[in-house]
Amino acid sequence: MQLRMKAKSMAEHVLALNAGSSSLKFALYELVEDRRPSMRWRGQIERLGDAPRLLAQSAGGRSVDRQLSGAKTHDEAISAFLELTREYLPDIHVRAVGHRVVHGGPVYSEPVVVDEHVFDTLSGFIPFAPLHQPYSLAGIKAAAAAFPGTTQIACFDTAFHRTHPWVNDTFALPQRFYEKGVRRYGFHGLSYDYVSQKLKEIAPGLYDGRVVIAHLGNGASMCAVSGGRAVASTMGFSALDGLPMGTRSGQLDPGVVLYMMQQEGMEADEIAELLYRKSGLLGLSGMSSDMRTLLAADTPDARKAIEYYVFRIRRELGALSAALEGIDALVFTGGIGENAARIRQMVCEGMRWIGIDMDPNRNADNATVLSTDFSRVRILAIPTNEEMVIARAAARMA
Amino acid sequence: MQLRMKAKSMAEHVLALNAGSSSLKFALYELVEDRRPSMRWRGQIERLGDAPRLLAQSAGGRSVDRQLSGAKTHDEAISAFLELTREYLPDIHVRAVGHRVVHGGPVYSEPVVVDEHVFDTLSGFIPFAPLHQPYSLAGIKAAAAAFPGTTQIACFDTAFHRTHPWVNDTFALPQRFYEKGVRRYGFHGLSYDYVSQKLKEIAPGLYDGRVVIAHLGNGASMCAVSGGRAVASTMGFSALDGLPMGTRSGQLDPGVVLYMMQQEGMEADEIAELLYRKSGLLGLSGMSSDMRTLLAADTPDARKAIEYYVFRIRRELGALSAALEGIDALVFTGGIGENAARIRQMVCEGMRWIGIDMDPNRNADNATVLSTDFSRVRILAIPTNEEMVIARAAARMA
Repeated sequence: MQLRMKAKSMAEHVLALNAGSSSLKFALYELVEDRRPSMRWRGQIERLGDAPRLLAQSAGGRSVDRQLSGAKTHDEAISAFLELTREYLPDIHVRAVGHRVVHGGPVYSEPVVVDEHVFDTLSGFIPFAPLHQPYSLAGIKAAAAAFPGTTQIACFDTAFHRTHPWVNDTFALPQRFYEKGVRRYGFHGLSYDYVSQKLKEIAPGLYDGRVVIAHLGNGASMCAVSGGRAVASTMGFSALDGLPMGTRSGQLDPGVVLYMMQQEGMEADEIAELLYRKSGLLGLSGMSSDMRTLLAADTPDARKAIEYYVFRIRRELGALSAALEGIDALVFTGGIGENAARIRQMVCEGMRWIGIDMDPNRNADNATVLSTDFSRVRILAIPTNEEMVIARAAARMA
Repeated sequence: MQLRMKAKSMAEHVLALNAGSSSLKFALYELVEDRRPSMRWRGQIERLGDAPRLLAQSAGGRSVDRQLSGAKTHDEAISAFLELTREYLPDIHVRAVGHRVVHGGPVYSEPVVVDEHVFDTLSGFIPFAPLHQPYSLAGIKAAAAAFPGTTQIACFDTAFHRTHPWVNDTFALPQRFYEKGVRRYGFHGLSYDYVSQKLKEIAPGLYDGRVVIAHLGNGASMCAVSGGRAVASTMGFSALDGLPMGTRSGQLDPGVVLYMMQQEGMEADEIAELLYRKSGLLGLSGMSSDMRTLLAADTPDARKAIEYYVFRIRRELGALSAALEGIDALVFTGGIGENAARIRQMVCEGMRWIGIDMDPNRNADNATVLSTDFSRVRILAIPTNEEMVIARAAARMA
């Protein structure tokens, strides 16, 4: 009797997990009225396998910062997280765990409940994202063990892009490559999904139009959305293509990779290491992968890296406008997009010809609407929230 | 005395040569009033090293078609050509030979007289274009031996692009790669040079403006030109980047090359063979690299290949307009650009949003001006003439 009472009083929660190579990010949501997720705790376990440390903040202002001598694997990180919940939230019931999964291949255009078949299918996409997909899968396994009886739900960074027409889904290779999955998947889909839904809420007229969303974070890409449906993205098969990023090259002539192999004798792994970890803003500046550092430094090399970054965004803005046959709104999101007024300003300065007219004061204030009242194209900044997209899926599907 | 008379009466000529892996194209020009080159003969020796054959036509309507059992090398091809000139034009004096050279590296932004030092410098660029540069150099050597006493002049496909600002000359790699020459050289520069000069002649107002030239031939690229100076090109370090071509892939996520190596176990040479010779229109259609064949075929696969080709041109048109901060004119050139009215129409149909308004009748007639009288952006078709650019340089510098 007492047990039933307790079970009844336990608040229903969903958990959003994002498992990377050396970190596990989490956000815990209580399901409030109409099963709407309301964030209670968020944080991460970082430096997995080295000197793991748990950092977390509650919505109520409590914070945790704890060395975890034992947590070297994703399983152990989730155990550490469980301990935290038992300590701070003794009366919760986790109903479902939603996972950010990098790759849904050509198959998944929506979140999916992970059963054995789905897990096997997702394992089959490891060759498409060997640096990321194994960690997504390790996170699913660990969560299923740590929260027995919960539903595991995979939410894909690729799913939002599955509406791309074929011309934006393919490369000009023999068709057998397309058939075996060498396609322009696009990433950052959870972010685009969130921003797109937010736009629908605050500006339904723009949502119905032709929108380019620039997700500028540590990773960076841009997405062309028409009437809420993704049409094109700057990212392609891997997380390397398109815009330059903190340490990733962005677009690169395939002839450069051939040159590295044939003339410089570099191995594939060495090239991957170079393009994923030593290029982009870090490579160009020789200084930092962090835009804040580069903006503060104001050295010639930092300025050049920024100039290149901004130029590539403008170039893709023109290209994606062509994919949309015009543009009604430009939305900035991600750490840089939401906060770096100077970058937004530099991007927009060169785009007056396309009808983009920025209000410098609104931009400096990080307002939601950044365009002048006379701008033909609306400019917005919308903070992204990928965990919320995962939590909503978990709440809906559990 | 008689000798001097003869020498005096001998008409001055320059020769333009374009040496490829299995062919040697040539055009012979007489220097008429003001040393203006006037074409006398043009033709090619094809299937070098296999079943070589010389095909040539004179401006006066004569034609030659001859099997050349002996000509397996570039030297022998030039000997065969010399025989032809002796037979048909006994009284000519070749004053200079201009060569199409694929790669001028970061060094040459103008044609240059080839001495030993220059030849060595050009040999140093072989790693940048291993499939093309050796043949350019073989052509220079052969011509110097076959026409003793003539000046050899190298005219570069990269030279026109040396005015690109740094952001269009670099990739987001560590700076040492830029310093050792991994840059966005751009190609088809002789064609852009010709078209640009022609535009200056027929439409000086447009020449002063922001122009995108689409060189659509067997190779294909686009170039953004502002006031006659190249600002950006779709081609990068190698002849692979940018638009899809007859058999070349065009832009490709570098992650796809890594996938081919790491997951498919492909060797660099095999990937190069795939991307240079089996991709592009041929790869997508599984049928042909020739746009005429695809347009005539009208099968689903041919239509898809065409659709992709057109889409990538539109995408780059938006991107290059961003590089120019607007567009005043679009110029089509190259075999497809000059002749394929349907391709031009498909490109322009999706670009109304940018101010492009095509006149379907002018387009069907292959007129010079293809836009309506009300189009904000002018559309032109200008037949290219790369040999003429080489001949002019040879006439000027000999």
